[in-house]
Amino acid sequence: MDVANKIENANKEAIRRIIDSRPVWTDVLPAIDAIPGMEKNLILHSGPPISWEIMSQPQKNAVIGAILYEGLANTPQEADRLCIDRGILLEPCHNYTTVGAMCGVTSASMNVLVVENEHFGNKAYCHLYENPAKESLRYGVYDENVLRNIRWIDTVVAKGLKAGLRTAGGRFDIRPILTRAINMGDEFHTRNLASTSVFNMEFMPYIIKSSIEDNIKFELANFIKRSNHFFLHFVMAYCKASLDAAKNIRYSSILTTIARNGVDIGIKISSLGEKWFTGPAQPIEGLYFNPYSIDDALPDIGDSSAIETYGFGGMILVNSPAVSLLIDSGFDEAMKLMGDSESICYGSNPHFGMPVLNGKNIPVGIDIRKVVETGVVPRITTSAVHKEKGGLIGEGVAKVPFSLFKEAFYEYVKQVESY
Amino acid sequence: MDVANKIENANKEAIRRIIDSRPVWTDVLPAIDAIPGMEKNLILHSGPPISWEIMSQPQKNAVIGAILYEGLANTPQEADRLCIDRGILLEPCHNYTTVGAMCGVTSASMNVLVVENEHFGNKAYCHLYENPAKESLRYGVYDENVLRNIRWIDTVVAKGLKAGLRTAGGRFDIRPILTRAINMGDEFHTRNLASTSVFNMEFMPYIIKSSIEDNIKFELANFIKRSNHFFLHFVMAYCKASLDAAKNIRYSSILTTIARNGVDIGIKISSLGEKWFTGPAQPIEGLYFNPYSIDDALPDIGDSSAIETYGFGGMILVNSPAVSLLIDSGFDEAMKLMGDSESICYGSNPHFGMPVLNGKNIPVGIDIRKVVETGVVPRITTSAVHKEKGGLIGEGVAKVPFSLFKEAFYEYVKQVESY
Repeated sequence: MDVANKIENANKEAIRRIIDSRPVWTDVLPAIDAIPGMEKNLILHSGPPISWEIMSQPQKNAVIGAILYEGLANTPQEADRLCIDRGILLEPCHNYTTVGAMCGVTSASMNVLVVENEHFGNKAYCHLYENPAKESLRYGVYDENVLRNIRWIDTVVAKGLKAGLRTAGGRFDIRPILTRAINMGDEFHTRNLASTSVFNMEFMPYIIKSSIEDNIKFELANFIKRSNHFFLHFVMAYCKASLDAAKNIRYSSILTTIARNGVDIGIKISSLGEKWFTGPAQPIEGLYFNPYSIDDALPDIGDSSAIETYGFGGMILVNSPAVSLLIDSGFDEAMKLMGDSESICYGSNPHFGMPVLNGKNIPVGIDIRKVVETGVVPRITTSAVHKEKGGLIGEGVAKVPFSLFKEAFYEYVKQVESY
Repeated sequence: MDVANKIENANKEAIRRIIDSRPVWTDVLPAIDAIPGMEKNLILHSGPPISWEIMSQPQKNAVIGAILYEGLANTPQEADRLCIDRGILLEPCHNYTTVGAMCGVTSASMNVLVVENEHFGNKAYCHLYENPAKESLRYGVYDENVLRNIRWIDTVVAKGLKAGLRTAGGRFDIRPILTRAINMGDEFHTRNLASTSVFNMEFMPYIIKSSIEDNIKFELANFIKRSNHFFLHFVMAYCKASLDAAKNIRYSSILTTIARNGVDIGIKISSLGEKWFTGPAQPIEGLYFNPYSIDDALPDIGDSSAIETYGFGGMILVNSPAVSLLIDSGFDEAMKLMGDSESICYGSNPHFGMPVLNGKNIPVGIDIRKVVETGVVPRITTSAVHKEKGGLIGEGVAKVPFSLFKEAFYEYVKQVESY
């Protein structure tokens, strides 16, 4: 078999594994009890690896907040000192099969969703949705309210979810929620109202039937009601668990990771395993809340780009007419961009059809060969935070820089030639 | 002021009243306690008036079911005799500011939603959603299961809804649910998954907080979970309450009613008050479940066409790409049909934008002058029942016959000339 055929077969296998993945939600646990290798003095963050010294201010804020939350320091100054002295270890979520939203900071006692890929056996983890406030840990703010809310999430919300999941038999299938929600205009990154409300409709009977206290049932139902993005974190874990199954396939040029930390953006390629290819995180073009502009914004941040890596989010903007109105020149433009997404993907995913395209399946498997050939790069629909003080200041679209694909392609070709 | 101006002003006023209507859900009560003029031996049905003798078989079945349910007869034969002898009175729902789904049969002890138009003071009523089964009273089946389920609706579901509504302060606003759901691909007639799930998300905290028994909370949550059309009946009452506010405006050529009973279809015009213009109910073209075809189907039936009269449903098929896939030649065709809808409406409704049309507002106020001028008639997205045994056998689109508009227009012109 010649090399071209080997590449075709490898890429077919990669998208088969992404498509055949069946991630189900199986638990809610503190990170220390869920994530293999998690430590009390370890703090996970979004994006490729980065040292404390060059970390962005919002992400630093989130790390400091987590250190205070864990009681590892009493003041921000002490927390900063711990990071400088490496008394606190900082590692990418991705090194622990975990994904984190925006700053992505996840520490030992924060509860995470446990998602198991039933078809391939691997697991992925994602912290719980925080709240709809503009000021939150994921957006790089760590004041008293933020930490009090995280405590509440780790007790009330986690307890409620766990109780409902137990009533449901300890297994809750994620894909059926996504299948219905994609028909309701979610692209799952900037819009999760449909997935959240369908999840809520499916899950509430379990919550009500559970033996948890009534006030926890109420608090959870009331929290989901005001959290249009509640299900985002399930989607992130779903995508991560699916993509991890497609890693380490010899000859495969399919993308398995896109992640950003506000300074760098990194990608990984199936055949090149865990090797990062990184470059500068990109600006977010879109709508900024008054009085902010793109000049105030930190570049692109978060592991939520697992959603685009899977084939949702900015890859299928057209499926969310309501989002396309917000962050692009409308639905017609989004329709055109769909061609871009398809031009860089290896195949299509039969589990998900887009009603506005007469049921056409979503694309799957971003192929770095196609990116290099066409010059088209993936677009990510995402949120923007203030570059110094943190906090949500806008919504928009960021690109993955072409240079990463060129570099990865060079390395990929070298590797294929070396076999 | 010349006549043309008077007509313009009248039509502006008609659509203003439709648009400014604010129907809120305020109660759940047995029909006898809610609907003014309701009687124990009165049974309401959908569509224009019709006598027992020429009523369609499925609607007759539903009436017989209601008579048995009310204990007014012990056998179908007795029930039939009561109808022949006029011991049971049959009247259109519309005569009692009520709307009924499909056969639309509503009897004294069946619970109805009470919806109050806060802006104009008028009320509308609609029975509760039955269940997702193909065999149900609204589809013209009255076996033991069907009647047992209605008993369950009138106790468990009605009780749960009432308890939640009480916790919510006895007032639940409908429009905010519709505003969110129209961005999620509902057209509110054949698709109500978004409105139902958003309603569920908003309403569940009230249910949980209420003091009703836990098993009723669970049963209600579990019922809504399997009822994608649960909110349809709220939408029907919302539309009816809005349209009734636009009745009896001198000079107005705006449609206030479309209703069908499987034999006849009828319309009403604002300036002509409660006068029906009727003609033969039309066939439903669409998808039929194996082994059925259009030849097995009863013509178009139900008061749910209040939804189209308002400007939803078949008037905005394009907003439901998922529906357009099911019952038309896809989304592209639905996009073309949108022009038809706009060509016969007097204005647009600022409360509702369609994301697939870059946020364009939905049309409002079907103007019989425009229908006569263009030859374009409203399309209704609806369900088909078996013409003899009842039961759901398909989904599709039916038209309002042109002859009704011609006749109404003739009468309208005569009336305007007589002023």
